[in-house]
Amino acid sequence: MSTTDFQQWMAGIQQRTEVALAANLPACDIAPTRLHEAMRYAVLGGGKRVRPLLVHAAGELAGAAPETLDSVACAVELIHAYSLVHDDMPCMDDDVLRRGKPTVHVEFDEATALLTGDALQTQAFQILSDTAFLDDPSRQLRMVELLARASGSRGMAGGQAIDLASVGKEITREELEFMHIHKTGALIRASVLLGAYCGNQVTPMLDSLDRYGKLIGLLFQVVDDILDARSDTATLGKTAGKDADQHKPTYVSLLGEPRARELADDLLAQALRVLEPLDGSALRLRELATFIVHRRY
Amino acid sequence: MSTTDFQQWMAGIQQRTEVALAANLPACDIAPTRLHEAMRYAVLGGGKRVRPLLVHAAGELAGAAPETLDSVACAVELIHAYSLVHDDMPCMDDDVLRRGKPTVHVEFDEATALLTGDALQTQAFQILSDTAFLDDPSRQLRMVELLARASGSRGMAGGQAIDLASVGKEITREELEFMHIHKTGALIRASVLLGAYCGNQVTPMLDSLDRYGKLIGLLFQVVDDILDARSDTATLGKTAGKDADQHKPTYVSLLGEPRARELADDLLAQALRVLEPLDGSALRLRELATFIVHRRY
Repeated sequence: MSTTDFQQWMAGIQQRTEVALAANLPACDIAPTRLHEAMRYAVLGGGKRVRPLLVHAAGELAGAAPETLDSVACAVELIHAYSLVHDDMPCMDDDVLRRGKPTVHVEFDEATALLTGDALQTQAFQILSDTAFLDDPSRQLRMVELLARASGSRGMAGGQAIDLASVGKEITREELEFMHIHKTGALIRASVLLGAYCGNQVTPMLDSLDRYGKLIGLLFQVVDDILDARSDTATLGKTAGKDADQHKPTYVSLLGEPRARELADDLLAQALRVLEPLDGSALRLRELATFIVHRRY
Repeated sequence: MSTTDFQQWMAGIQQRTEVALAANLPACDIAPTRLHEAMRYAVLGGGKRVRPLLVHAAGELAGAAPETLDSVACAVELIHAYSLVHDDMPCMDDDVLRRGKPTVHVEFDEATALLTGDALQTQAFQILSDTAFLDDPSRQLRMVELLARASGSRGMAGGQAIDLASVGKEITREELEFMHIHKTGALIRASVLLGAYCGNQVTPMLDSLDRYGKLIGLLFQVVDDILDARSDTATLGKTAGKDADQHKPTYVSLLGEPRARELADDLLAQALRVLEPLDGSALRLRELATFIVHRRY
């Protein structure tokens, strides 16, 4: 299959995700207008939409309808967006640039950024619990629980806490991996599983998809560390070199860049291998894994 | 029914809520330990537990099992607790005292307070979507959605945003009411409805309970404004007189204290009236309404 075909598929999902997000966020003319403006600012018009792409790729494989997947894609992307808004705040990473634009607390103010993150998280759960999108309340409830577990103190938010505690410290590779499995990995893994849950052919492939999701989550972070060390701010759309400036342990600081790249190649090979038994070898998931390694921002 | 009986009932619910909250929060020895310690610090060992009391009162009336109501009580209390942690942060109300203890960002640090609030919100949705507690996934899913709508940008978080925007401004009584219906009212109303949803005799009383929930939400805030103006820090367990110091519009600043008290009496009378058609005249809900008016903190 050609690269062009993947590019078109990806652009199509990104576009429909943008439309779905715009429809799922309250309009700017609904009170409180400034909060709704900030929520839309934080979410719309940027981002690679890696998690929505994973939702759709896994969902297509499981035979789910694209409209159903749109809701799930919005929910995971809003969780991701909320975490970025809070992570950028002065008391956390104190960053001024995100997706090439001023961060929410810079463009609006700190209090608005705090409430924006809060309300985006709630909106994610509202979308996923909306009774309209899946005709199986029992499965849908399990999906809400899965998203909550992936996002909370033993998932993404917990990973952020470990990240904070590790600044300026020497940590082992095991500790670094533990942090990333939570901070980035949990939501990426959940994206794959939630997409698959929307289809009817999910059960036989769940184990493979779960292993794929875990590998791809770690892979994403290893590549992120390499990009942060190597790339420039204009390309990334966020401040480059921050990890080193803040003395954050990364795969690059721990292993050196050549070995971090080897690790990325190895994780990619493992991820492709777990997909082999799947239908059509799970084309889009294969392509996405490769995309995650070769992305430039 | 005697006051003593109500006091005993209330103490019983508060106690079982404390036990349920302790069981529903991750233990301090689970990583990330500092985050879990902060989550428990923010939630346990304090608070009037007004929302859990409303959950149980409405739930008892609808014939729900106390164990089922415990889960719902925890979910609403965690949403309330998360909002307090974030509301106390320097970029919001900048308060150092809550429930007689240093606020989370004072006792820990700002970043931990931010993540604590985030993770408490997630935990609320995790508890409410746990498939173990209600044998009716369709109803449970509606409950998750109801909690999300009550908490988000068109509910509690939206009310906080309106509150922020109103500091130092002249606002009308209608605007003040609009703010409070969102900021405090939405979650209090949701507590009543969520409790009732756990029972099997809910449908005929839903309209009355909804009206009661709305009235009691507003009543709670009017009394809060009077207490903030009248009481002292030691009694309240949080900094008294902050509204006036921060030039926040309140029912006292807008109407004066005597008319604010009249309004509270009037709202109480209305709340008791809407309960009249209900079974046993909804004893606990009546008592709770009276308690909310006569509380000292």
